[in-house]
Formats: sequence, structure tokens, C-alpha cells
Amino acid sequence: MKALLVVAHGSRRAASNDEVRKLCKRIREEKGGEEFGVVMAGFLELAEPSIPEGIEKCIELGADQVVVLPYFLSAGRHVSEDIPAEVEKARIANLHASIHLAPYLGSAPGVSRLLVELAEGGEKNGDSFE
Amino acid sequence: MKALLVVAHGSRRAASNDEVRKLCKRIREEKGGEEFGVVMAGFLELAEPSIPEGIEKCIELGADQVVVLPYFLSAGRHVSEDIPAEVEKARIANLHASIHLAPYLGSAPGVSRLLVELAEGGEKNGDSFE
Repeated sequence: MKALLVVAHGSRRAASNDEVRKLCKRIREEKGGEEFGVVMAGFLELAEPSIPEGIEKCIELGADQVVVLPYFLSAGRHVSEDIPAEVEKARIANLHASIHLAPYLGSAPGVSRLLVELAEGGEKNGDSFE
Repeated sequence: MKALLVVAHGSRRAASNDEVRKLCKRIREEKGGEEFGVVMAGFLELAEPSIPEGIEKCIELGADQVVVLPYFLSAGRHVSEDIPAEVEKARIANLHASIHLAPYLGSAPGVSRLLVELAEGGEKNGDSFE
């Protein structure tokens, strides 16, 4: 079974962390549920579970493949160093599982399309220009 | 003519700001170019142009409608207070233009689909599980 761990930075503001958890719930309910038996949120800092804890949880729930996806918009130190280091820790601790680091959200080719849809959508939804 | 101002937080790391500028270039070259005569990046802090400067620039370039889209993943203070306040300043200074604040990226329904594509894509592109 495959699991998807969506890794956000983590915030002191609980609502921001919950927003990521709700997004994972939506992925489970949508198409992602077909591909991934587990979809959960993990956090680099300030919230739980941590990345290694999240990966462990996915494996406990029966995953033998875990895709870790950084929910980040830019390729800073967190994406290029901190998250890979955490994933590596989890790899060493779970040699029997396949742990794959996906590209970060901001690198997705589809982001541009999504922004245009969002920019157009406000109008379609009836928000008037002021 | 309509303009799209993609507003990021802004970073001390120049490459992160350039990443947003490159994204805007991609939007211009893709479908966004049909809808928006100008697509440019603006920054809440730490980089230029600021939000009011970006809006002014769009208007100078001939826009009579400016869509400001927060390139943010969570609905924190920046999205709920700081960006609307900057947009309001620009509205007061540009009463002849229509300035519309679009929803922030993280609120787009399509984000979940994009994450699944990205999580699946790494495999399709041949990245092996380790």
C-alpha cells in the first residue's frame, strides 16, 4: 500500500496546521484515495507529527511505499536541505520501506494553470471589480 | 486590459523571489497571456515591487483592471490582514482602476489534484523508490 505524507513547514497558528490536515482529508476523499491508502500531514517544525513520525505512522498503518511531498512554494533551505535530511533519517530507521521524496509544490508545472483559474474564478463566482 | 499581480511574501534569498517572477513569465507564455495583458510579481516585504508599486506598474502599462492574487498556502495574518490593507492603499490611490483581490493559492480547490499529480508524477518520470 502507498501512503502520501504532505509536509508543511508548521505554524504556531493552529488553524494553519489544520488547513494542511483538511487538505489531506480532501485528497483522501478525492482521486488521491484511489492511489494512496493513507494521506496525512507532517510538519518540519512547530507542529506534529514530525516528518520521521509521519513516515513511521504511514508504515504502521500498512504502507510499504511512502511518498513525502513538500507543501512549499519555493526551493529554499527547508526544501533543499532540511526535509531531505529528515527523510534520510526515516529511511535509515525503516530500511524495509520505500520512501520517496516528491518535488515541492511550487515546482509543479500545473501551478501556473491553477493561478489563472483562481484569478479568473473570482470573477466567475460573482465577485465584482470595485 | 486586465493585469494579474501575483503577490508572494518576499524573501532575503533572491532565488526565491526570482522563482515567483519566472512563474509569472510562464503564466504569460501559457493560457494566462490570453486573459491578462500583464502578469507580474509583487512582494509583501523584502523584495520589489511592493504591492502598491506593482499595482501602479500594472496601471501604467495600461491595465484598467488588476487582479491581485496572494501566492500563499495558508490563511494567516498576511493573507487576511496585511495584503488586503496594501490593496486598499492602492485602491485609494487609483480610484479610476478596478482592483480585485483573488483568493489565496492554498484555498484553490485544485491544489489537492495538483498534489496527487505531483506525488504520482515522480514515479511516472522514473524516479525509483529506494
